[in-house]
Amino acid sequence: MNYVIGIDFGSESGRAVLVDIENGAIIKVAEMSYPHGVLTKSLNGKLLKANMVLQNPNDYVEVLTTTVRSLLEETKVDPNYIKGMGVAFTSCTCLPVDQQLSPLCSKELYADQPHAYAKLWKSHSAEKEAQFITEKLADHPYLEKYGGVISSEWLMPKLLEILNDTPSLFEKMDYFLEAGDWIVSLLTGNVSRSTCSAGYKGLWQKKDGHLDKEILQSIHPSLADVYTLQLRGEVIPIGSPAGTLTPYFANLLGLSEHTTVGASIIDAHAAVPGSGIYKPGILQIVMGTSSCHLLLSEQEISIPGISGVVEDGILPGLYAYEAGQVAVGDIFASFIKHQVPAYYTQESKERNLTLFQLLNAKAEALEAGATGMVALDWHNGNRTPYVNSNFSGVFVGETLQTEAHEKYRTLLEATAFGTKVIVDLFEEKNIDIHQIVVTGGIPKKNPFLMQIYADVLQKEILVVDHHQIPALGAAILGAAAARDKADEKYALNSAIQKIGFKDYIHYSPNKKNEEIYNKLYGIYRNLSHYFSSNEDLLTLHTLKTGREMNNGAKFMESIK
Amino acid sequence: MNYVIGIDFGSESGRAVLVDIENGAIIKVAEMSYPHGVLTKSLNGKLLKANMVLQNPNDYVEVLTTTVRSLLEETKVDPNYIKGMGVAFTSCTCLPVDQQLSPLCSKELYADQPHAYAKLWKSHSAEKEAQFITEKLADHPYLEKYGGVISSEWLMPKLLEILNDTPSLFEKMDYFLEAGDWIVSLLTGNVSRSTCSAGYKGLWQKKDGHLDKEILQSIHPSLADVYTLQLRGEVIPIGSPAGTLTPYFANLLGLSEHTTVGASIIDAHAAVPGSGIYKPGILQIVMGTSSCHLLLSEQEISIPGISGVVEDGILPGLYAYEAGQVAVGDIFASFIKHQVPAYYTQESKERNLTLFQLLNAKAEALEAGATGMVALDWHNGNRTPYVNSNFSGVFVGETLQTEAHEKYRTLLEATAFGTKVIVDLFEEKNIDIHQIVVTGGIPKKNPFLMQIYADVLQKEILVVDHHQIPALGAAILGAAAARDKADEKYALNSAIQKIGFKDYIHYSPNKKNEEIYNKLYGIYRNLSHYFSSNEDLLTLHTLKTGREMNNGAKFMESIK
Repeated sequence: MNYVIGIDFGSESGRAVLVDIENGAIIKVAEMSYPHGVLTKSLNGKLLKANMVLQNPNDYVEVLTTTVRSLLEETKVDPNYIKGMGVAFTSCTCLPVDQQLSPLCSKELYADQPHAYAKLWKSHSAEKEAQFITEKLADHPYLEKYGGVISSEWLMPKLLEILNDTPSLFEKMDYFLEAGDWIVSLLTGNVSRSTCSAGYKGLWQKKDGHLDKEILQSIHPSLADVYTLQLRGEVIPIGSPAGTLTPYFANLLGLSEHTTVGASIIDAHAAVPGSGIYKPGILQIVMGTSSCHLLLSEQEISIPGISGVVEDGILPGLYAYEAGQVAVGDIFASFIKHQVPAYYTQESKERNLTLFQLLNAKAEALEAGATGMVALDWHNGNRTPYVNSNFSGVFVGETLQTEAHEKYRTLLEATAFGTKVIVDLFEEKNIDIHQIVVTGGIPKKNPFLMQIYADVLQKEILVVDHHQIPALGAAILGAAAARDKADEKYALNSAIQKIGFKDYIHYSPNKKNEEIYNKLYGIYRNLSHYFSSNEDLLTLHTLKTGREMNNGAKFMESIK
Repeated sequence: MNYVIGIDFGSESGRAVLVDIENGAIIKVAEMSYPHGVLTKSLNGKLLKANMVLQNPNDYVEVLTTTVRSLLEETKVDPNYIKGMGVAFTSCTCLPVDQQLSPLCSKELYADQPHAYAKLWKSHSAEKEAQFITEKLADHPYLEKYGGVISSEWLMPKLLEILNDTPSLFEKMDYFLEAGDWIVSLLTGNVSRSTCSAGYKGLWQKKDGHLDKEILQSIHPSLADVYTLQLRGEVIPIGSPAGTLTPYFANLLGLSEHTTVGASIIDAHAAVPGSGIYKPGILQIVMGTSSCHLLLSEQEISIPGISGVVEDGILPGLYAYEAGQVAVGDIFASFIKHQVPAYYTQESKERNLTLFQLLNAKAEALEAGATGMVALDWHNGNRTPYVNSNFSGVFVGETLQTEAHEKYRTLLEATAFGTKVIVDLFEEKNIDIHQIVVTGGIPKKNPFLMQIYADVLQKEILVVDHHQIPALGAAILGAAAARDKADEKYALNSAIQKIGFKDYIHYSPNKKNEEIYNKLYGIYRNLSHYFSSNEDLLTLHTLKTGREMNNGAKFMESIK
């Protein structure tokens, strides 16, 4: 029997899974939290810059070593049968390293320097740099491929931030790497970057490569040669081998030097192979506090507000689109926290239910269209298609009798309409979506919500009830990397079909609700158009600023 | 010393006040609930028609007799010094009587016949008739004077309802009278109708009189001569004498036959003289569950969505405009009931406050504009200017962090913006409003709300903190009726200045909030325009129907 190991590095912890290469059965899972956790306030007692979020990258190696050794110790599997390894990582988490790939924060000189550490994906302290780069790329064809906006979470703004804040540190770094690529480079001794991380977060495109020198120079003179210096490294496709384990790491992990390591993948994107998807036409939604939508296609088209379209980004030979809804579970959680009156709390206690369960039960008892309300799910802004973080929630149709479970159902429906907007964007450009596969924390907890999605989208919804989908996706990349030479072209597809998830829970659209939801969706689109285009209303969205300031005078300045 | 008595007939009870004619001091108040109360479900064990609300009119006479006798007994005032009496009544409360003014429900034959009883103002069972009359008056100049809609609460729909449902009862009635006019007619032995009740609820206009025979016939052949039959009676101006007490009623009440009785007035309208208003340019707002706006002017203009403009309707020689906001206190109450989470309930208990007090305190601590939200106060529809009962509430600007007190403040502001729309309608037509006088249950309970109104309207707000304003207004009409012949022209003005309320609580506009509220009001107007005019959105308002039905299929039919 042969095996592969998949490792999924999340925000708080990492998980390694040992998987049967023939059928995807998970033999063992080992999990470990990062010893230093997530640093949001201070580093060694010194306050961090606002919105900066750090991690100690040595934690990643420690989690890697501990979990892999634990898999081996507990299963007694012969390391020679472990053919491949794959790495999925939250993204864009990145760090500066020296020529030996050692993190700069490990040097005594930089122990107190925040920029020498790994920045977690959600570190937003490079917002100024992101806006600056977006402006510089205003007429550049790449900008459209990223929905018109360069995010402060990505590689280039985070690198420019270091250059702006601590030029001396910038001088000292030899590589600036995504953490997933760093782990793969460490394991193999070859510095590589995957088409997934480079494509979605590193401004690389298969056809045109990297940004040219001229535009890089206009961003900052010191960045002119950045792609042959700090950002160098071969870009290798998802599913390809990055190399085999170095003797050092083979020994450290207790594995064979023959074990092949696959190119790294972003954790959300690992859900595509992990969920068993290997062909176009199936939309993958990772649904949690927010939703991330991934779609494979043979065509490259322009879609407003997507987070990225990357050739070979997930599967070689296909374009992979990423779109997003900024808040989904977050909206439900905020509603349950802030807007449900005490008599529901009382009833939930009497019936021994959580507030969520009570609201869900009452909302499910209503018929489609019976709330008499439509909402816009923009409480935390909108990504696809409007790319505006100032947008705010809209609620229409309240009466004096409106109750909490009716509003709750309206919010569930609103997020389904938000997803339908994204599906329509693709279908309007003749990119077919015939099925939806949903993973993440929410779908398995809320069958009622999944039925609403099926009814609103009038499409089959397949729910993946599995806790280790990104790790499974990573394991698939390890299996594909460890392919036979003869089978090269189909290695990844074949690995997905063998190892990827198969036992979906099916939700079929209820035809009787189609007309009602189409009507409500028409209203949702009408509201969306008005609230995204009316000049005066755009001012309204900036009112959020007033809220954050609780200062009327400053607020007036901000909207002038 | 001379006195007058004012009697205020409300929905649940009546109040009589004995007032010093020289200075308005209230010597004594006597109050009594209607023995038969308000009948909404059944009459003598038989179910009532949907939305029908009845009272037993004999209760009015009993309350009148008991309260007036109680005033006399408790104060030992010599009846000869009681110069006048006035009557304010909820409107349009109306009833069928025989030639002796005896209610038809007092006849054994009709004891179980709902249409023989008094219909309280809020009886809405004649909605079909109201719509029918509105259609028949489509091109008639009167319709504009009533904002384009004849309400089911008014005299003519309620009369047509009797004619449609029980033609035999229609045949038996000799008069169909507003209850206020009925009491005055009983007291004096002369059948009269006041310019106030006839003008606002009886489709009478000073210049053109009643509807002509042709249009009445088109409504129903039996109504052709209704104004010389069932609706006959001299229309007499507010402030004029209807007559002196009949010997029967002088004896029954313990008063002198020389006591003069003034023309009746609608209770909300009685607040104008009661609050000391006797000249144009002061907007009177009666603020409670809903708001009623009254304004005197020398000009007659067309205002969209007003409830009525009536020459001599409140003061002789002036046009009196009535406008309305369908829900004010109702919106706050509904919010506090349905949308405030348990942690506020908990805090209110710990701090020994009501939920209302806690929300008010937290909302007051915010600065203007700091909620980041704007709402439309249409939870129960809109009267002025759109006259659409299907309209529903709109809330814009919520984020994941929005809390209940911020939404509560946004709703307070929304009702102030709704009032500003009405003020602007007048001012755009060059009808000046330099001051606002507010009465009703809410103003004295909520100084913070009054300050918001002053800031939003940028006008001085004068709050009347007095429990008997309509009764005081009625007393003023009694005093004006008991005038010296020589003083006829100024009798009412002079009575208002002597007896009307004077000790207002002043709220001055805070200049620093002017710009912020102007900005927010601009957004409110923009939203109002969109939600009242966009065709697709008008569909949205009908979604309420879906809510009421909790039936998706029926709902779809209703919006097709």
